[in-house]
Formats: sequence, C-alpha cells, structure tokens
Amino acid sequence: MPAVRKTVIAIVGAGKCSRKLRDMAAAAGRYVAEQGGVVVCGGMSGVMEGAARGAREAGGVTIGILPGTDKSDANEFIDFALPTGFGEARNIMVVRAADAVIAFPGKYGTLSEMAFALKMKKPLVSVGAWKLGDDIVQIDDPVEAARVALEMAGENQ
Amino acid sequence: MPAVRKTVIAIVGAGKCSRKLRDMAAAAGRYVAEQGGVVVCGGMSGVMEGAARGAREAGGVTIGILPGTDKSDANEFIDFALPTGFGEARNIMVVRAADAVIAFPGKYGTLSEMAFALKMKKPLVSVGAWKLGDDIVQIDDPVEAARVALEMAGENQ
Amino acid sequence: MPAVRKTVIAIVGAGKCSRKLRDMAAAAGRYVAEQGGVVVCGGMSGVMEGAARGAREAGGVTIGILPGTDKSDANEFIDFALPTGFGEARNIMVVRAADAVIAFPGKYGTLSEMAFALKMKKPLVSVGAWKLGDDIVQIDDPVEAARVALEMAGENQ
Amino acid sequence: MPAVRKTVIAIVGAGKCSRKLRDMAAAAGRYVAEQGGVVVCGGMSGVMEGAARGAREAGGVTIGILPGTDKSDANEFIDFALPTGFGEARNIMVVRAADAVIAFPGKYGTLSEMAFALKMKKPLVSVGAWKLGDDIVQIDDPVEAARVALEMAGENQ
Repeated sequence: MPAVRKTVIAIVGAGKCSRKLRDMAAAAGRYVAEQGGVVVCGGMSGVMEGAARGAREAGGVTIGILPGTDKSDANEFIDFALPTGFGEARNIMVVRAADAVIAFPGKYGTLSEMAFALKMKKPLVSVGAWKLGDDIVQIDDPVEAARVALEMAGENQ
Repeated sequence: MPAVRKTVIAIVGAGKCSRKLRDMAAAAGRYVAEQGGVVVCGGMSGVMEGAARGAREAGGVTIGILPGTDKSDANEFIDFALPTGFGEARNIMVVRAADAVIAFPGKYGTLSEMAFALKMKKPLVSVGAWKLGDDIVQIDDPVEAARVALEMAGENQ
Repeated sequence: MPAVRKTVIAIVGAGKCSRKLRDMAAAAGRYVAEQGGVVVCGGMSGVMEGAARGAREAGGVTIGILPGTDKSDANEFIDFALPTGFGEARNIMVVRAADAVIAFPGKYGTLSEMAFALKMKKPLVSVGAWKLGDDIVQIDDPVEAARVALEMAGENQ
Repeated sequence: MPAVRKTVIAIVGAGKCSRKLRDMAAAAGRYVAEQGGVVVCGGMSGVMEGAARGAREAGGVTIGILPGTDKSDANEFIDFALPTGFGEARNIMVVRAADAVIAFPGKYGTLSEMAFALKMKKPLVSVGAWKLGDDIVQIDDPVEAARVALEMAGENQ
C-alpha cells in the first residue's frame, strides 16, 4: 500500500523583507499547516522565515532546503534543515520538492523559483510577486492564495 | 531561541538486495527512530526501503531524496519525498543532509555516497560496506552501528 | 603567468523557434566569435543551435552544457558538449560559465536563465526577451547586443 | 551532418601532490592532446594542473570544471574555465563530461570521481589510485594509461 503523503507547498519570496510581508507569508504557511500540508522553503530569513513560523505555529511540518553546507543556517522554525552546498541552485530543488508554489514579492532569486515552477508546470500562485503572464494565478490575500495552492496541488497529483 | 533539531542519519546501500540486508537496514533505521533521530536516504528500494520501513515502524520520520522528478517513485515508507531530477548527483545531497552516515553493502552508488561522506568529514559507520581505510568505523551489528552513528553525530554538531 | 582566457558569452533563448530568430542568434554568435569570444549555450536546438552555428561559421569555439547524459544530444555546431544529467538545473551552469549573457525570446527556461544572470549580477543584454526591469540592457539588433555584451563582460572581469 | 567531436578524457587525482605525480599527470595529458583528445579536469592544482599543463604543452584543449563561482580560480593551463558554484558536486560533472577517466592517486574527492565513473559505466583507468575491483583497468605508466583510456573511449562511443 503506497503511503498517503502530505501535500507539499513551497513558499518563496524575499530573504529580506518588511514585517508585514513576513506576516503575510506566515498567514499562508499557517493555513497550509492547518490543512495538513507541509511547507518547504529555502530555509533562510524574510518570507522563508515567516512561512515556516506560520506553519510551525499551526503545528505543521517545515522543510528548509539551504544554499550552504551548514544546517545551523536555517531559521528557527525549520523542522528539517537540508543543507545542499549548491548555492542558488538550491532554488530549483525547493520548487521540485513542491506540489504547488506560492510566491511572495522578492528579487531575482524569487524570480528564478517562479521561472522553474512555470517550467516544471507546477501550480503557481502569486501574492504580489513578479507578473509573468497567464500561467500564474494572482491572489492578493495570502490565506486565499494558500487555499488555492492546496486545491491546485490536489488536482495536479 | 534556535530550534532543537533532530539528528539526521543517512542510511545508504544497495538499491537491490537480499531480504536479510533489507532487514538489517530496517534494524538500523528502527534504532535511529527510537532514539528520536530522522532517517534520510535515497528514497528508493533495497537498503533505502528497509531503512525507511524500520524507522516508520518505530514511529520515526523518514526523508527520501529521489533521483527523478516524480515523488511517487519513493518507497511507501518515506514520509517526505523530495524529487530532485539530478539523477545520481542526488547522492551528494543525501550525504550532505545527514549528521552521520551508515553504509550497508552496495555498489558504486553506495561507494559515491561513502566517498562524499568522507570528503565532507561526516562520521561514517560501515556495516560490511566498502573498505576504504581508517576514517570509517566498521561495525557488524546494525543496531550497534546506529548507536555509534548517533553518538558520533552528536559529537560532530 | 596566468592564462589570458577568452571572454565567454552565454546565448540563451527558445529551444524551438522561427528561422528568423535562429538567424538572429547566429548573427550574435558570429560577432562574439569574430571578436575572439567563446559562445556557451544549452547545446540543444533553436536559439542555442543558431548561436552555435554563427560562432562556428566565424571559426569560433562553442560549448554546450546539456540537460541530459548523452553528448550526442548536442546540436552539430557544438565543439565541446558537456552532458550534465541535471535536467533544467543545467540552466544555472550555462549562466555561471559566462562573463555576460545575451537573451533572445524564449519561454520559462529562458526566464530561469535570465533570473539567474540577474541574481549572479552577470551583465545581461536582451534582444526582445522577457521584460524584467532596469538591470537588463534592451537592444534590438543582435550584433549590437553582442558588441555590448562583450564590452560589459570586459568591464565586469 | 553531425560534428565529429573530439574525445574527452577526464584526468582526476589529488589537488595537492608531489612534483613527480604532477609530472605523471602531465605525461598523460600530453599524450591525450597529441592524439587529438580534450582534457577535462577539476581545474584546480595538483594532478589537475599537471594534466592541463601537459595537454597545453602539446597544443591541446583543456577544460576545467570548477567548484567555486570564480573562473580565476582555475590553474593557468585551463583554456575553458567553467565555474559551477556546486562545490564538490562538480566532481560528478567532470566525470559526466568525459568519454573515459584516468585516475591518479588522490583522496576522497578522487574516490568520488572514480565511484561516479564506475556508476556511469565510463571506462576508468587507474594509475595507482584507489583499488576498487575489476571494473578498473590498472596501468602503472601514465602514457600507456592515456593510450588505453583513449582506446576504450573510442570503443565506448
């Protein structure tokens, strides 16, 4: 009997950001966890930290795929910190590990993650991130974004 | 306050192997889980499946870092299946994610994982795997191997 | 005495494209080669093939960093075909290998390459590719784009 | 008409080594270049530098696949320096790029390259490197090793 695996949602966005943006990411992470989903992210600060914090607060599981080789680089809300030593190339792995991706505003690292999500045909929900065309679902509210991401992830599996 | 993260033990070895070897890997995985550790492996069959089964039976967490892009390739005992699309290069990531490595007999994929463990100066315990010199701790009993791996992982952190 | 290494220009864009776009890529590749530069690309068809053809016609050197494991996948104008087995993650390596990047229109793979070029702060010249803000130099003429890319690569070293 | 691509030989071994070992690597590199082959290596010092020097002296082409992100890390005999930012994971790419591999003595990085060569079923000739079983051709003389590697590479294509 194959295991029933939890849905995995990647939450990506700026490594340095406002408190407001971190809180929005936390709201998305919290909703994913409340619904039984797992949050995967780049494991560092900013949006990644917010997303992990929200998920943790809801009793969920958080996975951080780190650019460096030291797992202590991960933010304090990461349950499973996976150092890669691959630098920015770890962005691909964050996306690859996910059933759907939620993107918050960020710079070029975030852009690379959105590009890979689109390339891999993963469902991609943007909460104010890069405008890159019609393959991205644009939603302003982070909880609604998380709800749609989970729904699309379910359909995609 | 930084999170107290669980110790992560990689269990590596042949993708195709005897039932006896799978059961030995299960014994090691079970012990790791009983002690509160996480088992990371390549997520596929053989030793990887045995290790994950043992850990699962003891209520532990199992992470599988997969060579392909489809998480349904993972064996049924993997809780968190992370597809990479990197092929054999995922072997590096299995080792990188671990605080210590237990190697069971395997062919050249296993050898590559042992080589990377040694290169990265991760504690490496061999249960009958490749003989590669004095940096490897040789232990015949899988439970004792798991005990030593956990102990060395603790000292290494 | 350190070697005087040739400037390396990555040319990226659609794997499937019109003859016109291939010819534009060829014009850029030809100019790079005429000026003594090396063309690196993803090694496959479309813009990659055009760029390599142009460089080859001018007697230049072409390097193709391939997604798969078989070097015979490379287009016929690639001098040095480097299979990676990393799938789309090889896009990062194409960009990493370059001193500057010229982007022609393409879809999400091209977008990922542009994102990484921006992330890595490599000079990036776009000939009608994705509009992603002011860090990209927009030039319509492929030869002029190649001239500017070579100039910026020189300043960046 | 597909291009007739040159045979690519990876030469691997210690990053720090005796002058004698560097000269042996140079003899192998020189022979590969004299026969029209390309030398690929990790691009750094020791055996890598020796191999590239030998190939360069014979007018051959040398490719260095670097662990870091700065191409100026490459030794002075590398014609095409490809920074990866992948750290030790670049070892896989050195092997993947080759039609056959010649291994000189080295530590665990060399071991990982030999493991991957074996895993990928690339012809592997050892000049005093790790003893890992019957899939490796053992040859003491570096020129003869290069001759056999080129021959096996030809048969393997």
